[in-house]
Amino acid sequence: MSNAKGPDHSRRKERSRQVILSAARSLVAEQAYDKVTVEAIAARAGVGKQTIYRRWPSRSAVVFAAVLALSEGADGQSVALPDTGDLESDLKLVMRATAEEFADPSFDRLLRALNTEIANDAALAAEYREKLARPLDEAKKARLRSAQEAGQLDPDADLDLVLEVLYAPLFQRWLHRGGPLTPAYADALVDATLRAFGPARP
Amino acid sequence: MSNAKGPDHSRRKERSRQVILSAARSLVAEQAYDKVTVEAIAARAGVGKQTIYRRWPSRSAVVFAAVLALSEGADGQSVALPDTGDLESDLKLVMRATAEEFADPSFDRLLRALNTEIANDAALAAEYREKLARPLDEAKKARLRSAQEAGQLDPDADLDLVLEVLYAPLFQRWLHRGGPLTPAYADALVDATLRAFGPARP
Repeated sequence: MSNAKGPDHSRRKERSRQVILSAARSLVAEQAYDKVTVEAIAARAGVGKQTIYRRWPSRSAVVFAAVLALSEGADGQSVALPDTGDLESDLKLVMRATAEEFADPSFDRLLRALNTEIANDAALAAEYREKLARPLDEAKKARLRSAQEAGQLDPDADLDLVLEVLYAPLFQRWLHRGGPLTPAYADALVDATLRAFGPARP
Repeated sequence: MSNAKGPDHSRRKERSRQVILSAARSLVAEQAYDKVTVEAIAARAGVGKQTIYRRWPSRSAVVFAAVLALSEGADGQSVALPDTGDLESDLKLVMRATAEEFADPSFDRLLRALNTEIANDAALAAEYREKLARPLDEAKKARLRSAQEAGQLDPDADLDLVLEVLYAPLFQRWLHRGGPLTPAYADALVDATLRAFGPARP
């Protein structure tokens, strides 16, 4: 049934979706978030407001879809963490890259908008965990399990807790602008995490 | 000059401030945050919108002041951490209380509103650090320094990092609704922090 309008219709629909999501991302990157309305997104995308509301129920939903679309097409492979056999240097590589990403101004506003939406909407928070956070966490945990097998991490460690201790300080420092996100800071988080969950626990 | 209108005027002004801030807090606790407008706060407080705008430039500023007012009158004493000489049990007491506070629904919405404002406004984030976060952090660091002197914590530990490793996982789990905030979770954070920064570092 939905194909009755033909492949051209589907392509146009998908193209319009991409134009709207791209407009949402560029507006969020440019403006104070409370100025980013559905009206403003529609104007930037060159569509009517109703075209947006036919697909998404609210600004929250459009902005969330806009962020989600950035990771479309990324398969499991692309989020896998490096595994050279040296947990400490692999994690430092990853955490330095993460710190750099959070410190990037064009990424910063988009991430703040996403966090505003998920902080205030439990359903979006669940969708965020399911579609964005969980696949990334699973990739990270696969690396940690490999370290457990190699005797570089406590085999009994709760890997969700390990990830929280590793990432949450960086997240909170970024969200509250509490301090610089330097390579040295990234390294210090890896060092603390490995002391907390390394194999040589007392 | 400002006293020319007399003490009655000052008292009325202060009373009106308290009524407005209390109205802001109760609205935030009851409603979706994007429904909490300056108009709604004014209506709840029984004042004109201009009465609010004469004091505060924006919704952000009123909500921030409303949260800040909760800790008015608290002196240094009241934020001091327990110091029984046993760092582990003192921190577990504090972290269990913190987890309980974050899990309290009436506190939850107010804290989410505060975090929304400071995430999207660098000036408010700085004011938050100065007026709310720093005094609390100083009290916590005083307890950690006492533990360093007692040989219960690495004397070279960066105390800001210690606080981040201890608190940020709880904060992120709460903000993203990523899991339960139980006493066992609070304890696990203290255990991980003490392993990371305890005196017996390799």
